[in-house]
Amino acid sequence: MSRFWSPVVQGLTPYVPGEQPKLQNLVKLNTNENPYGPSPAVLAAVHEAVGDSLRLYPDPNADVLKDALAAYHGVARNEIFVGNGSDEVLAFVFQALLQHEAPLLFADITYSFYPVYCGLYGIDFVKVPLTAAMEIRPEDYRQPCGGIIFPNPNAPTGIGMPAAVVEQFLVEHPDAVVVVDEAYIDFGGESVIPLVKRHPNLLVVQTLSKSRSLAGLRVGFAVGHPDLIEALDRVKNSFNSYPLDRLALAGAVAAYQDEEYFQQTRGAIIASRETLVAQLRDLGFEVLPSQANFVFVRHVREDALQLAQSLRERSVIVRHFKQPRIDQYLRITVGTEAECAALVAALREILGAAPAA
Amino acid sequence: MSRFWSPVVQGLTPYVPGEQPKLQNLVKLNTNENPYGPSPAVLAAVHEAVGDSLRLYPDPNADVLKDALAAYHGVARNEIFVGNGSDEVLAFVFQALLQHEAPLLFADITYSFYPVYCGLYGIDFVKVPLTAAMEIRPEDYRQPCGGIIFPNPNAPTGIGMPAAVVEQFLVEHPDAVVVVDEAYIDFGGESVIPLVKRHPNLLVVQTLSKSRSLAGLRVGFAVGHPDLIEALDRVKNSFNSYPLDRLALAGAVAAYQDEEYFQQTRGAIIASRETLVAQLRDLGFEVLPSQANFVFVRHVREDALQLAQSLRERSVIVRHFKQPRIDQYLRITVGTEAECAALVAALREILGAAPAA
Repeated sequence: MSRFWSPVVQGLTPYVPGEQPKLQNLVKLNTNENPYGPSPAVLAAVHEAVGDSLRLYPDPNADVLKDALAAYHGVARNEIFVGNGSDEVLAFVFQALLQHEAPLLFADITYSFYPVYCGLYGIDFVKVPLTAAMEIRPEDYRQPCGGIIFPNPNAPTGIGMPAAVVEQFLVEHPDAVVVVDEAYIDFGGESVIPLVKRHPNLLVVQTLSKSRSLAGLRVGFAVGHPDLIEALDRVKNSFNSYPLDRLALAGAVAAYQDEEYFQQTRGAIIASRETLVAQLRDLGFEVLPSQANFVFVRHVREDALQLAQSLRERSVIVRHFKQPRIDQYLRITVGTEAECAALVAALREILGAAPAA
Repeated sequence: MSRFWSPVVQGLTPYVPGEQPKLQNLVKLNTNENPYGPSPAVLAAVHEAVGDSLRLYPDPNADVLKDALAAYHGVARNEIFVGNGSDEVLAFVFQALLQHEAPLLFADITYSFYPVYCGLYGIDFVKVPLTAAMEIRPEDYRQPCGGIIFPNPNAPTGIGMPAAVVEQFLVEHPDAVVVVDEAYIDFGGESVIPLVKRHPNLLVVQTLSKSRSLAGLRVGFAVGHPDLIEALDRVKNSFNSYPLDRLALAGAVAAYQDEEYFQQTRGAIIASRETLVAQLRDLGFEVLPSQANFVFVRHVREDALQLAQSLRERSVIVRHFKQPRIDQYLRITVGTEAECAALVAALREILGAAPAA
């Protein structure tokens, strides 16, 4: 602690992102990146934007991107907010919409950045335990609150809720903002963006980092009633006029213009996931039902941390969380077919199973 | 005001950035962008980084960029913080280092984002008037404070302080963080980065938007004692793990590897400024002594806002601030020789002066 620090700094426990190893030739299944690169149309659009115009500031309002997102999702421009990755969007959401007298509610097992944001903005929160089956259940949230946030599908469990269940939260808490973090929605979940028109308390957050293969470009967005979007804009415009650079804007717009590539790659990931789930079950893993591009698994016998270390020795990196309730689980990103095969081969070796026929 | 807003939102008065007109063929001298494009080496490095790897998150610690900056400025990696433009860096600085019981001090005429940050983070501040000659003077800051911030050279005046005068602030306020915002330092000012080793209360902020021609790429950084950098890192890591995307990182590193281009373009801007200052004086303008890539001018006779409008009718855009003390000034970015000539020709026409011989 330095005497120069603002009081808030002392109490912060920053988020720890998954490792970005500098070694090459690893089977990297630890941060839920898309195993397929961005659409060729995205790469072309970014190349096109590299030039003299980088000397100029980007559009502070990102209108072209907002229009592309609005058209894609069937909403109006003023129902869209864009930011430098969905983590930045979420930060603005916590600061602008979730700081109230009553506590914010979120699951005990969920995205571990949520309590970090609460620390940064002095937001009181209550953790609501998942059910024994690791599910989020509206009944458990029937208590006074200033807001509710959950990923759908949840991370790191991968378990999704149908839109009808999400709507229960909206109906039961008309005076609280309900934030649905749809980072993984495109891998089999049901987006609630269509509910925005009916529910002024709904804010949906999505990212281009997963299903759009653009983790390296940092683009996320939120969809909600214009009043909610205005709050986000006010905070953003009091923080940084231009969070999205010219290349991120160009690439993000192009990502929504290549629907075929999007459908093809997400389809491939969903197919690989189903194969992987069956193989993991054969190897003695319990696998939670996943609607995401990762699986959350527990071996009937083997210690999770030990397994993660054994995988690392075989150049396969997965994510382990040292946290009560889930310290015997591993979160494994669904990679390409070859990456999934390498993972399964490494696990067979570790577990002493016979190699696949 | 919506019932869903956090209390802080209601009171915010967001920063209003200079217009980014969507029309082409304007002589755009309103937001202090560099009239010369980025170095060809930067463009090549960015093209090189466009590819499959955009599916992967960037390095959350931006080590390669920190190392490039550290080497360039003769400091250590842990004395460097990087962010998504210097506006984001400044936001973190306000939140992490300037929120204290005693008020923050800054000039009455300075970067208008400073009071906005104070609103966002609940920071008490006192505005210290510039002298009649529009200068910042250490004597005027001899009062209890939790921190001091000023641009050097100041914006929008363009007036710089020698490093020895900046050091007076550091010596007179050993218990307050002194933030020196060097956005425009490369156009003739004297950086105080070398003073970081001697003064643990000094934080220097720079940007790649001006002298490095990369406003469209959003990269800024801070240099200071590791304790100050740690506070910034804690806040950043509680806000967004990856504020800098892969392309911004690649371009920023390359910008520091082409010293020749940097020296040549900043030299050209300084030379254009000197020519422009002489021409503006000939046309009846008072011109404050500028060490920046803009000039701050007042006509002896003509109304500033009227002049700005007349220039706009001639497709030349400059910046006017509706603010006491400076509402008769215009801030004019130093463009290319051709842009400066177009400005001067338009002014001659407006003022009814004879065209240049």
